[in-house]
Amino acid sequence: MPKLSKKGIDIPVSPIRKLAVFSEQAKARGVKVLHLNIGQPDIEAPREAIDAVKNSNLKLLPYGPSQGNFSYRKKLSKYYSKHKININAEDILITTGASEALTFVLNSICDAEDEIIIPEPFYANYNGFASASGVKVVPVASEFNNRFQLPSLENIDSKITPKTKAILLCNPSNPTGYVYSKLEIITLCELSIRKNIFLIVDEVYREFMHGDIEHYSVLRHPEGHQNTIMIDSVSKRYSLCGARVGCIVSKNKLLIQNLLKFAQLRLSPPTYALIASEAALDAPDSYLKKVISEYSKRRNVLIKALEEIPDVKVSHPMGAFYCMVKLPIDDAENFSKFLLTSFEDEGQTVMLAPATGFYSTPGYGINEVRVAFVLNEKKLLRATKIIRKGIKKYNKIYASPVV
Amino acid sequence: MPKLSKKGIDIPVSPIRKLAVFSEQAKARGVKVLHLNIGQPDIEAPREAIDAVKNSNLKLLPYGPSQGNFSYRKKLSKYYSKHKININAEDILITTGASEALTFVLNSICDAEDEIIIPEPFYANYNGFASASGVKVVPVASEFNNRFQLPSLENIDSKITPKTKAILLCNPSNPTGYVYSKLEIITLCELSIRKNIFLIVDEVYREFMHGDIEHYSVLRHPEGHQNTIMIDSVSKRYSLCGARVGCIVSKNKLLIQNLLKFAQLRLSPPTYALIASEAALDAPDSYLKKVISEYSKRRNVLIKALEEIPDVKVSHPMGAFYCMVKLPIDDAENFSKFLLTSFEDEGQTVMLAPATGFYSTPGYGINEVRVAFVLNEKKLLRATKIIRKGIKKYNKIYASPVV
Repeated sequence: MPKLSKKGIDIPVSPIRKLAVFSEQAKARGVKVLHLNIGQPDIEAPREAIDAVKNSNLKLLPYGPSQGNFSYRKKLSKYYSKHKININAEDILITTGASEALTFVLNSICDAEDEIIIPEPFYANYNGFASASGVKVVPVASEFNNRFQLPSLENIDSKITPKTKAILLCNPSNPTGYVYSKLEIITLCELSIRKNIFLIVDEVYREFMHGDIEHYSVLRHPEGHQNTIMIDSVSKRYSLCGARVGCIVSKNKLLIQNLLKFAQLRLSPPTYALIASEAALDAPDSYLKKVISEYSKRRNVLIKALEEIPDVKVSHPMGAFYCMVKLPIDDAENFSKFLLTSFEDEGQTVMLAPATGFYSTPGYGINEVRVAFVLNEKKLLRATKIIRKGIKKYNKIYASPVV
Repeated sequence: MPKLSKKGIDIPVSPIRKLAVFSEQAKARGVKVLHLNIGQPDIEAPREAIDAVKNSNLKLLPYGPSQGNFSYRKKLSKYYSKHKININAEDILITTGASEALTFVLNSICDAEDEIIIPEPFYANYNGFASASGVKVVPVASEFNNRFQLPSLENIDSKITPKTKAILLCNPSNPTGYVYSKLEIITLCELSIRKNIFLIVDEVYREFMHGDIEHYSVLRHPEGHQNTIMIDSVSKRYSLCGARVGCIVSKNKLLIQNLLKFAQLRLSPPTYALIASEAALDAPDSYLKKVISEYSKRRNVLIKALEEIPDVKVSHPMGAFYCMVKLPIDDAENFSKFLLTSFEDEGQTVMLAPATGFYSTPGYGINEVRVAFVLNEKKLLRATKIIRKGIKKYNKIYASPVV
């Protein structure tokens, strides 16, 4: 058969989905699988969003504007102003999910062999987007022991080469839950200006803050406006993952113009999803407050339960709905597979996301997993019980634990 | 500011949308614009599709399977069997429109600098998809005077180099309306097998056949199964352009596996759109029959009216809803701009798609336009009247006509 592309072959399989086949086999055996592996919210979307679609009176679905309809962009700019982000409708390009947003941005600023610096661990698909665009990811390690805060400026600076086109950050971070401080963001802005590169910040978890911390958006630093790009999505905020609506926001007009060409190629974002996303902005403030307080409660329950398991270490997340967990086992991927293929407790088991896929450096995160707290408290407690028993049984069968 | 990528800068502006700013200005002056430039159906979508969305009882929108849900792919395979295309659900990957389908296919088979052969004129965005993926388009000219049939095998063969990864075709063709015969398709299949390259056929207009012609899908030639890739979409078939649902179909399992990695990166296609697309398959056969007979009627009305304009030549389309038209003017882009900026007839004007953007060879198609017949007969007649008057006035002001 004809050969496939190198870049396609190079795309790594997602650590979030790579064990899916074992989970399906477990389900086929009648075992119930509790999913801690995927960040799929289980909370209802705003009624406004769902109702708007049900009440729409479209008779056919025409193409919309490639940049997204003006009324939605206008309303979004008002939403951002509540977060002290001052931008206009013209600074927003609506995309088919944050995934498309990041793909457009990478393609708009990088040619093949160019480099992007990302603090690791990072959202696993960043590796994939980079491979798919022929771009090289240059990781800078952040540390489990200090909650994965920003690596030192010297360390980041030392990775910048003439091929470096951007630094990419997720704030709050998936998978670590770390929230970058105003100082960290401004430091990176200034570095980007000095080095004439872009700073891309994926802020899809902006609203999900645990405790009294203020999120500092990269767009709040006006000096960086030619260099900074913000990525957003309705997926997590409004439990609208399947809508596939995101956006790119930047004050850099030349960049937005160039991104529009990529947007025009794919014609327009999905119509019904836009209707839902625009209406979601009409939800009362109480909607998000309730959602976030629910996730914060789950976070606390989960951390407590996990830390009660001997030799388990949890990196306490300040935002988003994930935490990184160090387990007293030799290999988290083997262990995760074991849970799905060779273990059950009263007909139930757990699916985890092994952490190596969130790192770019080989060998990092080998005994870590990412846990998403998108299940209710009862299920989370049940899941931690299963993990506790699973560790015991796994370590009886396999090598002695590495702590 | 930091530099943008070469490939982004290289993406040409769409000829279908490049005059949009002048059309908006005309509308702002109160002039009504009849759109012959864009293939946006005006016929209602199947009621089944619209009702399914309105009656859905989703409370939140979860991610779906990256390849599209099984039930939809299963139903699609039954739809294809009605067209003598024997494939299974496993051979189908659902995408966010045919645009995403083509992007995935190009990225899955080409690295930067690889080449794709396309008979020109071709759907303008093929140029853009290729630029966005760093791929080089190698055109082979087809001829206005013989309805744009497939160029000679020798001609195509002579363009194949070690960098050639595929031949790309649209059948029925946008923009020419030509329908490739069984013999032409099989000839290309055999060439692709011999040269160990892929043959990609975009069949989104499969159903739109004018007269008693049978469409021969590239997947009907079993010998080519390792080499052939079919692209499809619900946009035109069911007037669901804004849904953004398409698919890639191939019997080449390694290719489908590789494409799935690109699909997993963007998580899943849009949920509501999938609901509409799946339900559209429940529409009775009479739905498409009626739609197609309406387009056929319009085609005949349009061709007749255009040919009554002195020195206008029309390439009679056998399929799709476009035709290529040679105008007795010096430059179709100037003329199209003139119609929007400096001409009106009783408060109305016409927007055309200048044909140069559908060619890759500079200078080709300079006095041609693509006309979409997605307006009703009355509007089409009105539009041709405007074109007739416009030509007269334009030629009085500008150079003498080149015929």
